[in-house]
Amino acid sequence: MSDLSATERTRHRRLREKGRTDRAALYEVLRAGFVCHLGVIDGGVPMVVPTVYGFDADHLYVHGSVASRSLATGEPSGRPSATGTAGPVTGSGGAGRDLGTAADTVCVTVTHVDGLVLARSVFEHGVNYRSAMVYGVPRKLEGEEKLAALRILTEHAAPGQWDYARRPNRKELAATTILAISLAEASVKVSSGPPDDGDGPDAELGLWAGVLPLVTTWLAPVADPLLPEDVTPPDHIGGRTGTRLS
Amino acid sequence: MSDLSATERTRHRRLREKGRTDRAALYEVLRAGFVCHLGVIDGGVPMVVPTVYGFDADHLYVHGSVASRSLATGEPSGRPSATGTAGPVTGSGGAGRDLGTAADTVCVTVTHVDGLVLARSVFEHGVNYRSAMVYGVPRKLEGEEKLAALRILTEHAAPGQWDYARRPNRKELAATTILAISLAEASVKVSSGPPDDGDGPDAELGLWAGVLPLVTTWLAPVADPLLPEDVTPPDHIGGRTGTRLS
Repeated sequence: MSDLSATERTRHRRLREKGRTDRAALYEVLRAGFVCHLGVIDGGVPMVVPTVYGFDADHLYVHGSVASRSLATGEPSGRPSATGTAGPVTGSGGAGRDLGTAADTVCVTVTHVDGLVLARSVFEHGVNYRSAMVYGVPRKLEGEEKLAALRILTEHAAPGQWDYARRPNRKELAATTILAISLAEASVKVSSGPPDDGDGPDAELGLWAGVLPLVTTWLAPVADPLLPEDVTPPDHIGGRTGTRLS
Repeated sequence: MSDLSATERTRHRRLREKGRTDRAALYEVLRAGFVCHLGVIDGGVPMVVPTVYGFDADHLYVHGSVASRSLATGEPSGRPSATGTAGPVTGSGGAGRDLGTAADTVCVTVTHVDGLVLARSVFEHGVNYRSAMVYGVPRKLEGEEKLAALRILTEHAAPGQWDYARRPNRKELAATTILAISLAEASVKVSSGPPDDGDGPDAELGLWAGVLPLVTTWLAPVADPLLPEDVTPPDHIGGRTGTRLS
């Protein structure tokens, strides 16, 4: 392949894969899901945990018990170790602390997988997705702020439940950890559309190429077996059946 | 709430949320998806990127261009910075390097979200999910090993494509980065079933409670607009329509 062809590919890639910097694009990606992957440094190694989130104009709110434990103490906590040896994780006396405030920065990634891109060549195969990354130093919320964030988070994942279910009492709120992360440092990447090799030499191979889309859908609510039979799901729950998540 | 009640909840929690250590459980979670979240330390801060994976009995293989760039050079690379200031990321002369080999450990997390757990109380709300975390120091593959891993990865995401599409030539293979991570240090967590508060005092509130399940499904293939109309998708692609991802 000549250099020109490589440049061509780069151009096509840019069409398929777009970095977006506008706020609207960020909100759109955040709106389309409710589970993020939270990355923290835990005892000197990265730890990535799935957790629930919500957001408002300026902040992402994450349910952060695991992260908070590691951020607050600097102790290795979440790492599963079959060997139990000190090794690189716990070695050099909590090396993670040497990083100072940098070690308290977290990365939150929200990803929606929209489909598989099946090209004529293996090399051009890929994934259509929408993804947002947010970097920030999380702030542990307390009191009224925590309650307000928990409401946002609950309503984001399960709209209507804040007014329907029993709200947290003081003890429950105390046992809940909510972290706020600024949306100031965020990036969005969207990859969409057909494969890139439709106008290259591989088009002559006569192979099928295109996209195999993936959708995530809510099914009908499944009642708790302990629930009396005459209690039916309210509209804000039952009404989601058959709708798409993202 | 009395201590006993808290203990009760703990017991229930154990039933809902199971840590599993057997290999079969790990393979099951890995089999059910094809996009993971790869966590690396990049310039002293965690970076979490979605990427495609595959696996065999002993290793996870990830498409690792972003991670490899950061792991190989120690330079901050992937972090979006609106401010452009040195700040905690690039400060103290590449602090990430102080961690030695620990900084080269990555965490790969694969998560399947199976549904929302809607309890009588907000506090007991949760998510049903299956998640695997793998920790290891990635090894960048070359030559035949890289080709074999790329085949595994391709066949995991798009079964049948390795024999159908044009395989990578030498130049394309050189431009592909595949990382191998041992499955030796891994953990699996599965949360399933109805909410926990069906036999507590909140059951008397008369509220509906249960699970709102989520499923991810393949739709019918969408042909590349540049494809001649008489080229139809082969069975290994078209046959996935309507099947569930995980």
